[in-house]
Amino acid sequence: MRISELSRLSGVSVPSIKYYIREGVLAAGETDGPNRATYGDAHLARLRLVRGLIDGAGVSVAGVKRIVAALDDGLPLNAAFGVAQDAVPLTGGADSSEPSDVATNAVAAVLDEPWAAHHPAARVAARALDTFDAVGEPLSALWLARYAEAAAIVARADFDELERRGDPAAQARIAAVGTALGDVVLQSLRRIAQATEGERRFPSPSPSSPSGQENPS
Amino acid sequence: MRISELSRLSGVSVPSIKYYIREGVLAAGETDGPNRATYGDAHLARLRLVRGLIDGAGVSVAGVKRIVAALDDGLPLNAAFGVAQDAVPLTGGADSSEPSDVATNAVAAVLDEPWAAHHPAARVAARALDTFDAVGEPLSALWLARYAEAAAIVARADFDELERRGDPAAQARIAAVGTALGDVVLQSLRRIAQATEGERRFPSPSPSSPSGQENPS
Repeated sequence: MRISELSRLSGVSVPSIKYYIREGVLAAGETDGPNRATYGDAHLARLRLVRGLIDGAGVSVAGVKRIVAALDDGLPLNAAFGVAQDAVPLTGGADSSEPSDVATNAVAAVLDEPWAAHHPAARVAARALDTFDAVGEPLSALWLARYAEAAAIVARADFDELERRGDPAAQARIAAVGTALGDVVLQSLRRIAQATEGERRFPSPSPSSPSGQENPS
Repeated sequence: MRISELSRLSGVSVPSIKYYIREGVLAAGETDGPNRATYGDAHLARLRLVRGLIDGAGVSVAGVKRIVAALDDGLPLNAAFGVAQDAVPLTGGADSSEPSDVATNAVAAVLDEPWAAHHPAARVAARALDTFDAVGEPLSALWLARYAEAAAIVARADFDELERRGDPAAQARIAAVGTALGDVVLQSLRRIAQATEGERRFPSPSPSSPSGQENPS
């Protein structure tokens, strides 16, 4: 297909497609004349992946580049996860300050494996705990343990989903996309669960319409 | 104390403190002469909250302004949660495209309450599911159900933490800070749990040092 057709099918503008090609996140089309290139279904699939990571999960173009390079290289699974983890920035991950020993130990105490305490995300979690302390609202160890329990549940779900796929390329794809978009799903469902749990414990006057809609009853 | 002392104790520069005062996220000091103002412990506590939300949870200054206004107004709990949910942007929440009916129904199916399907975050979750479909890796209903289970666990942990506090001001504070920073803790622990689960299912050659450290054994 021509680039105009690729644009129509993907919903991505022609200038954006050309930008992605320049940035190396999308392969160039097959040239069949001056200023004429042909694109195939692989281009369409790749464009959907790129837009899903950028629009849906807030991954930067540089991050997408690392992820698609990993997919194209046929990296082993753990490496694909590692690349995705590096490419999808953690909120609060840019802060390089040192967490307190108390918070570092609190995080280490809820992890299943001693080596996991050296994961870069452990520092991010510990700094977040320090912030709760700093605003005068320290958290209980039970709170953190239940967050860790929830994280283990979703990680098992991620890997079960991965193992349902036999094809290594599909496994690498779900590892990369799942790392990025799984965060989005989890954050969204947490917001909804907070609203639901809040309504359960502190019912609003009109319980069937806590979202502010009209309640005809 | 003087602004210089407030800056030293909080680690926030004097220009930043003045900026926060102009933006209305920090109350002005008590004027006791031309160009002289005195600040108290309440200013220090507020500054720590502001920096925790901005640096630790990526909340914008405008978002912080809404959160602190809610705290100062002594809003009821559900309102405090609502303000925090609005102020802390969901990744992917800026996308206003309509999710598919299939994804919308899949999200509704894992929620405890019918009204919860109208929560704005349900659209964000549904759009994320659509992206998995678009890249050719649709997810199982079981995956989503386990994410919802994890979200319910953390929401209960959040409210238990809140109910441990008797003081309504402290409850509102933990609701606001917990909404923002709980995301950070959950996202971090998910990364670590993925690494741990990956190592369990696909052990690296040197299992005691999957993070790439030397293994002397």
